[in-house]
Amino acid sequence: MTTQVINFADKFSQFTDLWSPRIIAQMNDYHFKLAKIQGEFIWHSHPETDEVFIVISGSLTIHLRAGDVQLKAGEMAVVPQGVEHKPSAEHECHILLIEPAGTRNTGDAEGDLTAENDVWI
Amino acid sequence: MTTQVINFADKFSQFTDLWSPRIIAQMNDYHFKLAKIQGEFIWHSHPETDEVFIVISGSLTIHLRAGDVQLKAGEMAVVPQGVEHKPSAEHECHILLIEPAGTRNTGDAEGDLTAENDVWI
Repeated sequence: MTTQVINFADKFSQFTDLWSPRIIAQMNDYHFKLAKIQGEFIWHSHPETDEVFIVISGSLTIHLRAGDVQLKAGEMAVVPQGVEHKPSAEHECHILLIEPAGTRNTGDAEGDLTAENDVWI
Repeated sequence: MTTQVINFADKFSQFTDLWSPRIIAQMNDYHFKLAKIQGEFIWHSHPETDEVFIVISGSLTIHLRAGDVQLKAGEMAVVPQGVEHKPSAEHECHILLIEPAGTRNTGDAEGDLTAENDVWI
């Protein structure tokens, strides 16, 4: 493995579909994924792992049973293992996700919005 | 653990010293650390882990035995486990580091620049 420059804007220019994370890097057994989101996702949790959201552009709401969290560009949050959450964004929002390789986007709530979780760009 | 908004600019405003990473978040057994860097670090490697650099502001050079990599804001790179590297920055640069909890900043080259690796802000 060599060390390459990974430019978020360049990577975001390579896809348009929403709620379909693309892998851009691997660190040990973790994947770094970019996603474009808009609208409402579904409630789900990841029973096996914490999940990190970093907002690259736009604004993201992470709905939690304990109350919503609002994130904008330059901000991040950690959703703990097993905690139910539902991401949403009024306008298109670009995010960086960090989680173990193989983590399913819909966690314990597999369904129509479940994306392939091994697509690299 | 609750989910909190972590704002990079707010966190960077809380310290001024160079080459002294501050922990801002934990995901499973990984730490997210902010650092302000300027000048030349030392050659070192991390025999046990990959290391991620994300540039929040400014420009970073990661010197590698195979050639240098230049990163600016909005870009990231993964330095693989065991690969010798030396970060440097001509002007003050603000970076986000992601690596396992307990990873020493100077890796296998402990010395004057070795920082405490458990300081949260």
